[in-house]
Amino acid sequence: MSSRGDRTDPRVARTRDDVPRAAYRILVDEGADAVTHTRVAEAAGYAKATLYTHWPTRTDLLHAALSLMTEVDHASVSGDPRADLIGQMSGFRSMMEDRGTHRALGAMAELSAAGSPELAELRDRVAAEGERVMRGVLADVTDGPELEAAALMLNGAVLYAAMLHGGPPDDDTIATIVDVVLRGLRASRDG
Amino acid sequence: MSSRGDRTDPRVARTRDDVPRAAYRILVDEGADAVTHTRVAEAAGYAKATLYTHWPTRTDLLHAALSLMTEVDHASVSGDPRADLIGQMSGFRSMMEDRGTHRALGAMAELSAAGSPELAELRDRVAAEGERVMRGVLADVTDGPELEAAALMLNGAVLYAAMLHGGPPDDDTIATIVDVVLRGLRASRDG
Repeated sequence: MSSRGDRTDPRVARTRDDVPRAAYRILVDEGADAVTHTRVAEAAGYAKATLYTHWPTRTDLLHAALSLMTEVDHASVSGDPRADLIGQMSGFRSMMEDRGTHRALGAMAELSAAGSPELAELRDRVAAEGERVMRGVLADVTDGPELEAAALMLNGAVLYAAMLHGGPPDDDTIATIVDVVLRGLRASRDG
Repeated sequence: MSSRGDRTDPRVARTRDDVPRAAYRILVDEGADAVTHTRVAEAAGYAKATLYTHWPTRTDLLHAALSLMTEVDHASVSGDPRADLIGQMSGFRSMMEDRGTHRALGAMAELSAAGSPELAELRDRVAAEGERVMRGVLADVTDGPELEAAALMLNGAVLYAAMLHGGPPDDDTIATIVDVVLRGLRASRDG
């Protein structure tokens, strides 16, 4: 219990943490179909009734799982744009390799078919947090439409390879991508 | 019936065409959860028993729907790399706007959690057919690792924006992306 007088029961706080993590793991390991109250309660070690109290529907469970994508471990920034962009892309790759983020993003895109405003708001938070550090690095090199273009290309290359080529790009491919983009941005600035 | 002596009953051929299309539409409009034999039979206007004959499981129905992503209407090629790359990216954007392809790709990524070999094979066919014309255009400008990098960036930017920015890039953004990539590739070739 925090010193600010937060009165959340620590057991409730733990439940609010454990259950979305278990749901996320099931989502990326087994697919969204497997994210049911029965399966998640079993994996997280809670009673099914407890889950229904906090997450009354399957959609609630899925949204709670997807919300974990706003937790991003950003690589630290050195001041060298090439190294820093490679670092950010490698960090995005690690999220896919370690946490199956491309499958969670896939589930979010597929679930958006229903068009819920909560999901659109979550998507915006995932994108903003995911791109935050990279946008800071790019701002030292470019701005305006070319910064937007570069952010889409660099993040997009990692996501596209993970989703359509069986895995995110390797080190050499990431370095080649960063070099092409930096040369293209600088040629514009100098041109 | 074809002159090659194809003996498939035309009613069966029509079923094999209609049902995946109905399943695809339900997938991208309502999400994978809605793709059930009952719902697809109703939408396609066939008896549920007919569906079970050809697609015994929900996974079979989903795979049949996702297979439609190998049907790509490629923009024609003019010989001007800038115009042609913009044309290919705009074509990918149209697939997302008209057919919700980003949601179908999302479902494919999410379903790949189960790791079925059939799905991996389908993913490879979707990627190969989707990139075929663009790779031909890029081959006039570059080759090797830079061609791979460019294909990932150009397609990735469209997919990433559709999945994480609420919609694929607009005309100006696509043109900016193509210009940055072409300058980056040419600076390499000249450098």
